[in-house]
Amino acid sequence: MTENVKVPPFENLDFACVDHDRAIRQGVGEVIFAPGKTADQIVSIAQNLLQSQSFALATRVSEDQYEEAKSLFDQVHYFKTAKIMRFGAMSNKKLDFSCGVLSAGTSDIPVAEEAAVFLEHYGVQVSRVFDVGVAGIHRLLARVDEFNTCNAVIVVAGMDGALPSVVGGLLACPVIAVPTSIGYGTAFGGITALMTMLNSCASGVAVVNIDNGFGAAMAVLRQCNQLK
Amino acid sequence: MTENVKVPPFENLDFACVDHDRAIRQGVGEVIFAPGKTADQIVSIAQNLLQSQSFALATRVSEDQYEEAKSLFDQVHYFKTAKIMRFGAMSNKKLDFSCGVLSAGTSDIPVAEEAAVFLEHYGVQVSRVFDVGVAGIHRLLARVDEFNTCNAVIVVAGMDGALPSVVGGLLACPVIAVPTSIGYGTAFGGITALMTMLNSCASGVAVVNIDNGFGAAMAVLRQCNQLK
Amino acid sequence: MTENVKVPPFENLDFACVDHDRAIRQGVGEVIFAPGKTADQIVSIAQNLLQSQSFALATRVSEDQYEEAKSLFDQVHYFKTAKIMRFGAMSNKKLDFSCGVLSAGTSDIPVAEEAAVFLEHYGVQVSRVFDVGVAGIHRLLARVDEFNTCNAVIVVAGMDGALPSVVGGLLACPVIAVPTSIGYGTAFGGITALMTMLNSCASGVAVVNIDNGFGAAMAVLRQCNQLK
Amino acid sequence: MTENVKVPPFENLDFACVDHDRAIRQGVGEVIFAPGKTADQIVSIAQNLLQSQSFALATRVSEDQYEEAKSLFDQVHYFKTAKIMRFGAMSNKKLDFSCGVLSAGTSDIPVAEEAAVFLEHYGVQVSRVFDVGVAGIHRLLARVDEFNTCNAVIVVAGMDGALPSVVGGLLACPVIAVPTSIGYGTAFGGITALMTMLNSCASGVAVVNIDNGFGAAMAVLRQCNQLK
Amino acid sequence: MTENVKVPPFENLDFACVDHDRAIRQGVGEVIFAPGKTADQIVSIAQNLLQSQSFALATRVSEDQYEEAKSLFDQVHYFKTAKIMRFGAMSNKKLDFSCGVLSAGTSDIPVAEEAAVFLEHYGVQVSRVFDVGVAGIHRLLARVDEFNTCNAVIVVAGMDGALPSVVGGLLACPVIAVPTSIGYGTAFGGITALMTMLNSCASGVAVVNIDNGFGAAMAVLRQCNQLK
Amino acid sequence: MTENVKVPPFENLDFACVDHDRAIRQGVGEVIFAPGKTADQIVSIAQNLLQSQSFALATRVSEDQYEEAKSLFDQVHYFKTAKIMRFGAMSNKKLDFSCGVLSAGTSDIPVAEEAAVFLEHYGVQVSRVFDVGVAGIHRLLARVDEFNTCNAVIVVAGMDGALPSVVGGLLACPVIAVPTSIGYGTAFGGITALMTMLNSCASGVAVVNIDNGFGAAMAVLRQCNQLK
Amino acid sequence: MTENVKVPPFENLDFACVDHDRAIRQGVGEVIFAPGKTADQIVSIAQNLLQSQSFALATRVSEDQYEEAKSLFDQVHYFKTAKIMRFGAMSNKKLDFSCGVLSAGTSDIPVAEEAAVFLEHYGVQVSRVFDVGVAGIHRLLARVDEFNTCNAVIVVAGMDGALPSVVGGLLACPVIAVPTSIGYGTAFGGITALMTMLNSCASGVAVVNIDNGFGAAMAVLRQCNQLK
Amino acid sequence: MTENVKVPPFENLDFACVDHDRAIRQGVGEVIFAPGKTADQIVSIAQNLLQSQSFALATRVSEDQYEEAKSLFDQVHYFKTAKIMRFGAMSNKKLDFSCGVLSAGTSDIPVAEEAAVFLEHYGVQVSRVFDVGVAGIHRLLARVDEFNTCNAVIVVAGMDGALPSVVGGLLACPVIAVPTSIGYGTAFGGITALMTMLNSCASGVAVVNIDNGFGAAMAVLRQCNQLK
Repeated sequence: MTENVKVPPFENLDFACVDHDRAIRQGVGEVIFAPGKTADQIVSIAQNLLQSQSFALATRVSEDQYEEAKSLFDQVHYFKTAKIMRFGAMSNKKLDFSCGVLSAGTSDIPVAEEAAVFLEHYGVQVSRVFDVGVAGIHRLLARVDEFNTCNAVIVVAGMDGALPSVVGGLLACPVIAVPTSIGYGTAFGGITALMTMLNSCASGVAVVNIDNGFGAAMAVLRQCNQLK
Repeated sequence: MTENVKVPPFENLDFACVDHDRAIRQGVGEVIFAPGKTADQIVSIAQNLLQSQSFALATRVSEDQYEEAKSLFDQVHYFKTAKIMRFGAMSNKKLDFSCGVLSAGTSDIPVAEEAAVFLEHYGVQVSRVFDVGVAGIHRLLARVDEFNTCNAVIVVAGMDGALPSVVGGLLACPVIAVPTSIGYGTAFGGITALMTMLNSCASGVAVVNIDNGFGAAMAVLRQCNQLK
Repeated sequence: MTENVKVPPFENLDFACVDHDRAIRQGVGEVIFAPGKTADQIVSIAQNLLQSQSFALATRVSEDQYEEAKSLFDQVHYFKTAKIMRFGAMSNKKLDFSCGVLSAGTSDIPVAEEAAVFLEHYGVQVSRVFDVGVAGIHRLLARVDEFNTCNAVIVVAGMDGALPSVVGGLLACPVIAVPTSIGYGTAFGGITALMTMLNSCASGVAVVNIDNGFGAAMAVLRQCNQLK
Repeated sequence: MTENVKVPPFENLDFACVDHDRAIRQGVGEVIFAPGKTADQIVSIAQNLLQSQSFALATRVSEDQYEEAKSLFDQVHYFKTAKIMRFGAMSNKKLDFSCGVLSAGTSDIPVAEEAAVFLEHYGVQVSRVFDVGVAGIHRLLARVDEFNTCNAVIVVAGMDGALPSVVGGLLACPVIAVPTSIGYGTAFGGITALMTMLNSCASGVAVVNIDNGFGAAMAVLRQCNQLK
Repeated sequence: MTENVKVPPFENLDFACVDHDRAIRQGVGEVIFAPGKTADQIVSIAQNLLQSQSFALATRVSEDQYEEAKSLFDQVHYFKTAKIMRFGAMSNKKLDFSCGVLSAGTSDIPVAEEAAVFLEHYGVQVSRVFDVGVAGIHRLLARVDEFNTCNAVIVVAGMDGALPSVVGGLLACPVIAVPTSIGYGTAFGGITALMTMLNSCASGVAVVNIDNGFGAAMAVLRQCNQLK
Repeated sequence: MTENVKVPPFENLDFACVDHDRAIRQGVGEVIFAPGKTADQIVSIAQNLLQSQSFALATRVSEDQYEEAKSLFDQVHYFKTAKIMRFGAMSNKKLDFSCGVLSAGTSDIPVAEEAAVFLEHYGVQVSRVFDVGVAGIHRLLARVDEFNTCNAVIVVAGMDGALPSVVGGLLACPVIAVPTSIGYGTAFGGITALMTMLNSCASGVAVVNIDNGFGAAMAVLRQCNQLK
Repeated sequence: MTENVKVPPFENLDFACVDHDRAIRQGVGEVIFAPGKTADQIVSIAQNLLQSQSFALATRVSEDQYEEAKSLFDQVHYFKTAKIMRFGAMSNKKLDFSCGVLSAGTSDIPVAEEAAVFLEHYGVQVSRVFDVGVAGIHRLLARVDEFNTCNAVIVVAGMDGALPSVVGGLLACPVIAVPTSIGYGTAFGGITALMTMLNSCASGVAVVNIDNGFGAAMAVLRQCNQLK
Repeated sequence: MTENVKVPPFENLDFACVDHDRAIRQGVGEVIFAPGKTADQIVSIAQNLLQSQSFALATRVSEDQYEEAKSLFDQVHYFKTAKIMRFGAMSNKKLDFSCGVLSAGTSDIPVAEEAAVFLEHYGVQVSRVFDVGVAGIHRLLARVDEFNTCNAVIVVAGMDGALPSVVGGLLACPVIAVPTSIGYGTAFGGITALMTMLNSCASGVAVVNIDNGFGAAMAVLRQCNQLK
C-alpha cells in the first residue's frame, strides 16, 4: 500500500515559498496578502509570480504600499475602494458566468468591492446591488431582477447580518455570505453578523470569514472552475 | 436637602417578601417565577397575593408543579404550551389595545404563547402570526394585514433572529424582540439571535432576555399603562 | 394564495438607497449614521431626504465631519455632546408626551444626550436626571418626582448597569435601558451593563445596543406613534 | 418607483406555514427539521408537502420519532446513521455531478452521512472518503484519486478542524467545510473547528454551522441548480 | 541571602495530603469539598482532621453522600438547604462579631445558607435578610436596621446581581458579594451577576466565585481573625 | 408597614450629583474617577467636596489632567506611578492597622501603588513587597516576615494571577486579590488573572475588578472602619 | 523541483483507516479514542493493530465498553481510575527515563492516572505526587525530592491551575501542564486553569488540552524517543 | 514531618527581585521582558545579571528601547526581526542538539525568529523552514528532510493554526506549537490558532501562549537540560 505522491513546483524565496502550481490546482494563482509585508517583498513575490502568470493580485493593500510599489514596478494598478493592487495587464477573459454582489449598507461597500473587483479579473460578470438591507425590505424586493438570474450571489452585511437569510430564501443559486465588521457595541466587529449567517434559516447559505470579500470571490471562482 | 421617601407595603414570608404594592407601582402585580420553588411555596405566595388581587400568575411552571399545586388549591388553571398557571378567576377586562405576537418558526411557539397568554390576562387583544421566518419572506408579507394595525408587536425568533429587523422596517409601532434558545451549534442557546436583534438595522427595536416571553409581555403592558 | 405586495418609494444614489417612505412606515424618516461616510456622502443623502422632510438628522457625527458639512451646506446645526447634526430647521411640533432620560454617571451623559436631543426634535418633552447611580440610592429617590409622571423613561448606565433594575421597580411606564461602554476591565466595553439589564429583576425592562441612545429614542418614538 | 412583488403559494397549518413554492425558488423543497416536533406534526407537514413533491425528507430524526411516524404513515424510510427520514419513494434522478464527502475521523461519520444521504436523494453521485484526518497526511494523499475529479467536496471535521485547509489546497472545485461537535475541552462543541475553517489558509473554503451536514448538502445542491 | 523556611505538618493519605496546620495558618481548619469524593473518602479525611480539631465540615454534600456517611460515622449532622455536613459536635464559641447575610431572591437562599451556617460554626452572629432584591427597593430600605450595624455583610444575588451595588452604597463595613447561578438565558449561570458585582459602582465591594457561599464566609472569617 | 427612609445630603451640579454624606455612610468620602472628565470638571467636584472634607482624591489622573488642574487650583499633589491626584493637605491620621501590598511582577507596580497611596491617605501603614511572583517561590517565602503580621494583604498580579493562591494559603488575615491587565495573548487583558483568582484554591480570597487598586484599598478601608 | 513523497502503510476498514506505520513515525502506535465508538469497533481496530504491535491501548473507556469488550476478546485489562483499556500483554520494556506526575487536588487524580498508566506501558518510571496544590505550598516543598530528579514532569491541576507556575520555577526539566475540568462557576470546565497555565510566569511550561492526560503522556514519550 | 526548605539567592532591586539562581534551577538564567520597562531599568537588571552570567537577554525590545540602551551600555546587540537584545558576548557553546523552527506563513517569521535566535544563544543548532503552511502541503512534504532528524521541532502558525497537526503526524520528536496573532476577523488575535493546536489530532503536541516564541524556545531548552 506504499505509494508515491507527486510534489508540484514551487520556489523558495528567503521569506516565502512561491507556489507556481496553484493556478493549476485551484484555478487561481497565488494571491499576495499585503498586510505585514513591505512593498519590496510584495513586488518580489509579484515578479516571481509573473514568470508563470499574466497578472498578479495583492489584497488589503494600503495607499502607502501602493505608492511605494508604484515606484518599484511599472505596471501597477490600484483599486482604491477594494484595496486591491494588480501587477501586469488586465486579462480579456469573459466567462459565461454572472455573480450578484449585494451589500446591506453603504459602509459594507469596500468588502463588496474586494469581491467584485477580484471576480472581474477572472472574467466573471458582476452585478452590484448596494444598500439593500432588510430594514427596508421593499428596496431589496424591487431590485430582485438585477440578481435573480445570476449563477451565484455574494451577500455582504454587517450589524445584524440578516440579508443572506432573506436572499437565500429568494434564490436557488449558491449564496456566499460575508459578514463585515461594520457596527458597534454588540456587533462585536462582525462576530454577530457571522453568527447570524451561520444560523441562516434559509438553508445552504455558506459563509466565509469576517470582511473576507476575497474569500467569497474565491469560493465563487471554485464554482466557475466546474463550469468550464 | 434631606427628605423622606415613603416605603410601600410588602409582607415578609419566611422565604419571600411578597410585594402587595407592585400592581400600583408597575401596573401588574407580582408574578411568581416557578423554577426552583416547591408547589407549596408557589401556592403560599399565590394565596398571599390573592389577598390584594383577583388572580395571580406563575410562569415557567412544569406539569409536575401544576399537578401538585392543583391538589393544594382549588381554582388553578394551566396553559400547557405557555407553561403559565393561574390562581383565581380570569378577569373580563378588555383594553382597546391590540398586540401582534409573531414567531419565526414552529419551535418558537412556546415562548410566543407565554407572551400571548400573559397579555390576554390583562385585557390585550392578541393576534398570533406563527412560522413566518424570513427564509420565506412572502409568508410574512402576505400576512402583514394581520398585525400592521396593532398597537405593539412582539417578535419571537431563534436561530438567525432576523425576523425583528424585517418587521421593524415594516411598522411604526413598538417592536419588542424576543430571542429564543432554538437552534444548534452556533445558535449558542439564543445568544446569536439576541445579538442579531440588538444590532437590528431597523431602528428602535427593543430586546428582552432569551426565551423571555413574559418580559416582552410586561414591556407591552408598561405601554398599556400609558394608554389608560 | 398568490398575492401582490406594494413596494414603497426609494431612490438609488450610487452608494445608498434613500428611503423616502420611512417616515410613513416607521413614524420617523431615515436617519444618517455618520461613521465611515464622507461629509460629501452625508450631505448628499441629507439633501435627498430634505426633498420629502423638513429636517434630516445624522448621528455619531465627529467635529471634523461637522466642519466639512458646514462648508458644503448652509443650514446645519451641531449638538456637540450628543454628536447629532441637523440639516434644515428645527420643527415646532410639541407632543403631549414626556420622557425621562436618566444617567447613572457623569460619563454616561453623551449617550443620554443623543437620546434626549433626538426626542426633542420630534416634539417629546424631555426631563434630564443625570448622575443618579445606585451607589447613592438616596440621590435617585430624592429626584423621583422629576420623572415618575413621564410617559416613558430611558435609563442610561455603564459599569454595573444596575440603575434600570431599580427604576423599573419604581415605575409603571415603559423603561428602555441603554448600556454604555463606560468602565474598564470586566466592564467589557458595555457588555456587562448590557447583560445586567437583560437580566433586570424588574420585569418588562427592554434593552437596546451598547451606547445606542438613538435606538432608545426611536423605541420611545414608536410608542409616541401610538398615542397620536 | 412603486412596484408589485408576487407572493408565492404557501399553506397555513396551525403551527406551520408550509412552503409549496420552495422547490421552485431554491431547487429543493422544504425539509422538515425534526427536533422539538411531535411525530404527528412531522407526518402532517410531510403529507402536506407530498401534495406537491414525490418525496419529503426530515432531518435529525430520533429513532423514537421514526418508530412513531412509521405507525402513522406507510411509506417511511429511516437512515439510521444519517438520522434522515424519507416519506414517499426514492427518486431515480441521476445528475452528471459528483461530490466527495470526506471525514477527518470515525466519529464525524454521522454528520458526513447526513450530507451524503441528502445529496443522493437529489441525484448527486457521492464518493465517501472517511477517517483521513491530517495527523496521518499520507492516508489523505493516498486516496486523492477518489475525490479529485469531483464537482464539489464536502469536508467534515471536528477537533482541530484542519482537514479543509489541506483539501482546499489540493483541489480547484468548491469546498464546503462542516465543523463537528466531536472533541472535548477546548474543542468547545465544534467552535474550535468552525473557527479553524473560517481561517483556512486555503482560500475560497466556505463554511456552514456546526454539525450541519444538511446545510452543506444544500450548498452543493445550489451549485447543481446552476449546472442543469 | 540563603535562608530556611519551616514546613508545617500535614499527613499524606493515599488520595489526599491532609493539612493539620491550616487552622493555625488560616484561622479555620481544612474544609472538605464533597463533590467527586466517595462517602468513604469524606469520612476518612474527617476522621483524620478530628485528631486535631473538635469538628470538621464538608460542603456541597448531596443527600446521598450524607446518608452513606451517617452509616459510617456516628456524630454527623446535615444542614439540608446549606448542603453542609458536620462531623463532631457544634462548638459553643460566640464572637463579638455580627454578619448580615442578604439574598436578592428566594432561589438564592441555598447559597446564602451555606455562608450563614458556616459562619455560625465559628461563632459569628448571623442576621438573615432574604428576598430583598432591588426591583422592590423599598423592601431593602425598610429592613436596613436588620443589617446596618453588622461588622460585615455578605450579599448573595443571581440574575442582574445588582443588590451589592445598592448595599455597598448604604454601608461602611466590608461587603462580600456572591453571584449565584440563578437565572436563565443571558444570566449565563452566574457570569452576568459576577460581572455586575466586579463593576459595582459602590467602591470596595469584593467578590468571590459563583455560588461560593463558603468562600464568602471564609473571607469574613479572615476579618474575624484580626478582631481577636 | 409603610415607613419613611431618610435621604442624606447631596448637591446637584449640572453634570454630577456630589455626595456629601458618603464619608459618613462608607467611611471614605466620594472619590473622583478622572477618565472622561475635563480638568475643569474634576476641579469643580473637588472644590465642592472640600466644603465637607479636608482633602479630596482623584484616581486614574493623566499627567495632562494634572498639569491643567495645577493651573486651576493651588493645593494639588500628583502621585505619578499611582496616577492619584490629591486636592488639599495630607492628613496626619495614623491607624493601628497595617496592610501588605504585594505585586507579582515589576509591571504590576502601578496598580499596587494606586492601592498603597490610597491607603496611606487614610492612615493605614503600608508594607510594599514587589516582584515576588510564584515562578521564584523562594523570593516570596524569604520575605514572608515583611507581611505576615499585617491586618490585611492586597495581592496584585497579572499573567497567571497565581500569587494570591499561595499567599492566601500562608496567611489568616483578609486577602484582597487584584488582577492586572499585564500580559499578552491569552492573558486577555487581565481576564485570565481574574479567573485564576476567583478560583483560588486558598479559600476566602476576595477579588476586585481588573487593575482596580483603588477598589482593593476601599475593601481594606471598609475593614478599618470596623476596627475603630 | 518536482519530487516524490513516500506513502506509509495503512489499512482501510469501513469506518476507520488504521495507521500501521505510526509507531515508526511517532514512536507510539495508534491509540484508540473510545468515546462514540461501539465495543465492536474498538475490538476490530485493536485486533487490526495487534497485527503489527504487541499490545494496543484505548483511552476514555467506560465501564460498559470494557464489559462488552471483555466478552468479545480474551486478553483485555482495564485501569478503572485511568479509564484505559489494554488489549494484549503488558510489555517489559523499562526505559532509563523517569517522569513525575503531580496533581493539585484529589479530584484531579483520574487525569493524572491516565498520563501515568500510559507512560508505564512504554517503560517510563513514574513518580506519583498527588494533592500538593499551592494553597498549602509546604506540602509541595516537602515532597520536592520525589520529583526533582525526574527527566520530565506532568502537572495536573483544575480550579486556579496555579501549580505548574510554581513547579516550573523549581525545576529545569520539561514541564507539561494539564488543566482539568475540576471546579465550578468561573472554573468554566477547565478553561480558567488552561489560561492560567498558558500564562505561567515560569517560562517554558508547555500545555495540552483540558483533561488530556493522554496528550501529556504522548508529549513526554516524544521526548523519550530522543533519548534512545 | 516538619522540614526545612533552602531559599536560593536573589537580589532585591527597588522595582525587581533579580533571581541569580535561575540558571541552576531552570538551566537558563533570568530573561528580561522589555515591555513596560524603561531602558534604564532594563540595563540595571542586565548589569545585575551579568554579575553571575556571561550574557543576558531581553525579549520584545522595541527599536527605541534598543537605541536608548545602546547609549547606556557598551556591549549590546539587537536582533531586529526577533526583537531580542543581548548584553555581553555571544557564547561559543554548541550542543549536540538540533531544533527545527517552522513557520506557516511569511508573517509568522518574527515569532519564529524569537525562538530561533534564543535557542542559538544556548548552543542549539537551528534549522529554519519558513512559509510551509498546509494550503500547499507539497511545500512542506518537499522539505521534510530539513527537519525530520531534529531533536525537537517548534511550529509557528497563525490563522487556522493547522500546521502542527500535520507536522506532529510526520515526526516522533517533541513538537512545540506556537500560535501567532496573524490573521483577521475570527482569527481573534491568535485564539483560533491556539485552540486548533490544543485540539491537534496528532497526539502529544504541546502548546505555549500566543506569539510566545521565547516560551517555545524555553520548552525546548528544558529538554536540552536532560540531554546533557
